[in-house]
Amino acid sequence: MPKVFITGGAGYVGSHCIVEFLNSGYDVVVVDNMVNAIMGDKGKPTSLVRVEKLTGKTIAFHEVDLLNEAKLKEVFAANGPFDCVVHFAALKSVGESCKIPLRYYSNNISGSINLLNVMAECGCKSIVFSSSATVYGDPQKLPVTEEHPTGSCTNTYGKTKFMMEEMMRDVCVADPEWKAIMLRYFNPVGAHPSGEIGEDPRGIPNNLMPYVSQVAVGARPKLSVFGNDYNTPDGTGVRDYIHVMDLATGHVAAVKKIVDPALKGWKPYNLGTGNGNSVLEVVQAFEAASGKKVPYEIAPRRAGDIAVTYADCSLATKELGWKAEKSLADMCADCWRWQSKNPQGFQVSSNL
Amino acid sequence: MPKVFITGGAGYVGSHCIVEFLNSGYDVVVVDNMVNAIMGDKGKPTSLVRVEKLTGKTIAFHEVDLLNEAKLKEVFAANGPFDCVVHFAALKSVGESCKIPLRYYSNNISGSINLLNVMAECGCKSIVFSSSATVYGDPQKLPVTEEHPTGSCTNTYGKTKFMMEEMMRDVCVADPEWKAIMLRYFNPVGAHPSGEIGEDPRGIPNNLMPYVSQVAVGARPKLSVFGNDYNTPDGTGVRDYIHVMDLATGHVAAVKKIVDPALKGWKPYNLGTGNGNSVLEVVQAFEAASGKKVPYEIAPRRAGDIAVTYADCSLATKELGWKAEKSLADMCADCWRWQSKNPQGFQVSSNL
Repeated sequence: MPKVFITGGAGYVGSHCIVEFLNSGYDVVVVDNMVNAIMGDKGKPTSLVRVEKLTGKTIAFHEVDLLNEAKLKEVFAANGPFDCVVHFAALKSVGESCKIPLRYYSNNISGSINLLNVMAECGCKSIVFSSSATVYGDPQKLPVTEEHPTGSCTNTYGKTKFMMEEMMRDVCVADPEWKAIMLRYFNPVGAHPSGEIGEDPRGIPNNLMPYVSQVAVGARPKLSVFGNDYNTPDGTGVRDYIHVMDLATGHVAAVKKIVDPALKGWKPYNLGTGNGNSVLEVVQAFEAASGKKVPYEIAPRRAGDIAVTYADCSLATKELGWKAEKSLADMCADCWRWQSKNPQGFQVSSNL
Repeated sequence: MPKVFITGGAGYVGSHCIVEFLNSGYDVVVVDNMVNAIMGDKGKPTSLVRVEKLTGKTIAFHEVDLLNEAKLKEVFAANGPFDCVVHFAALKSVGESCKIPLRYYSNNISGSINLLNVMAECGCKSIVFSSSATVYGDPQKLPVTEEHPTGSCTNTYGKTKFMMEEMMRDVCVADPEWKAIMLRYFNPVGAHPSGEIGEDPRGIPNNLMPYVSQVAVGARPKLSVFGNDYNTPDGTGVRDYIHVMDLATGHVAAVKKIVDPALKGWKPYNLGTGNGNSVLEVVQAFEAASGKKVPYEIAPRRAGDIAVTYADCSLATKELGWKAEKSLADMCADCWRWQSKNPQGFQVSSNL
């Protein structure tokens, strides 16, 4: 089985993907800088302690910041050789990225350049990258295919994802030994069905579903819906929400693809369901799944928000043999199970 | 007088600008990593030893690679405070950038991010950046104004310049204490009129004028003209060549502007003459200036080359009070003086 080096593995998407990698028999070595994660027992993030419990496997974990290239190289060289890297590590708050852009450029761009340098030096030239639908900017055509132009994103977070895509594209063009798969996530939500791991945002959640679930659990009084005058059926913004466990199977499929000698060069794939749901549809589905009321108020539009986006995922189905399986009801039910079992996320429950 | 921290000051544009800064009474501290420069006496690059001779002033020089953030910070903190930074340091070969993109991204992007971090930490938040007309890609409209869309460059070198512009734009938007002037150079050529300093490319020159002058001096047998079937008067590519000493006065004007409290935020300025000259016009002008024959042959177009570009420089005239003064004949005469006095550049002549 392939041996995979995973960056940012303590985070939301990373930890759920690791469940799938371990259940599929992959050997993984995980690094994270712990800036957005809670440290648990045995020097491992609580999220990964839970993943060990869920899978019955032990995870090799190292606390490494990608900005420390020397330490990264030491850990990479000592634990390899690796068949590929799955690169989750990044700061990901759109709003914060516009307030402290230099920190985002340092962390996301310089950190990734260090990673590529270390990979090249160690002879590992295959990378699966956590990209984002944000690289498409405001979609010119729906559903969004991988052919859609990229780069017209207006926030720093999105620019870092776009720049990294371009860097990896150039690296693959220059050296045919390099392969890079860009997984362009639409809106990852939900949690592992066990409710043991899930999304654990620091401070006020930036994304809809964690906010809704915090309102449902009573941690916040009400949801603000930013704009109900968009050109959509109910006036609220429409997104393509994808269950994080579907995202996880997408990563396993991408790793299978990248270790196949037939794959060459740089390839982007959309990961979504292909369906758009409005904010109010998500609220309704969450109320149904949780049996809780989610009070909301209509607030002004947020600068930079787009009206509608959803994915055409046929390329991933055709070339990766992958398709999202879980419904919006699944996403809400699993998110609610995580939230209600862990009302304070990993912070407090890790001490239970 | 303002105190200016200069990166990449041993290079072609940097060294000529330092002449102007010193002659205008500015206090400068210069760093360079010496990867494309020749070391001369007293631990200083030969180019700067010559600048000292030309100006009668002593230059504070430190060998620093921007990738070594700790050393950069040490030198910056120990020699400051600085009123602003003029950031020339970058790898700049278009062809090479597409062959070794990771090196270009590391050097140009990570190095610049380190520089911005060190500046922020030391409380210096004003930067004049060596950008390039390459950020405009293939011009949609001529002459090119600063309003022209940027970012559609196809080579890694150009992408690094565009990405740095975007990073500095975001930093200025987030923090009103930051100011950044992007100087978008068209095609810098020529040399200091003394012939003591000039362009000293490693290996085969990437740019037209150094190649022409090496042919004129007998170092290369003939010039290859890449394409004579462009939609231009004589079929060869048209560029806006600007004398490097005009570029130098442009940098002095930009520093004056950036230290003015009235300037806020992020500002791009084109630096060119506003005139386009074809390859064959340059060859003719060079033959006239040098009295030497420049044999050439027509070769196929190079991938990525555009047909025509030239600048609208009225914004720099209006806001910086700057205008290019020197003619194509001046550019050729000064380039030839440098080339004929230093047929091997700084390499050999530094030992004379």
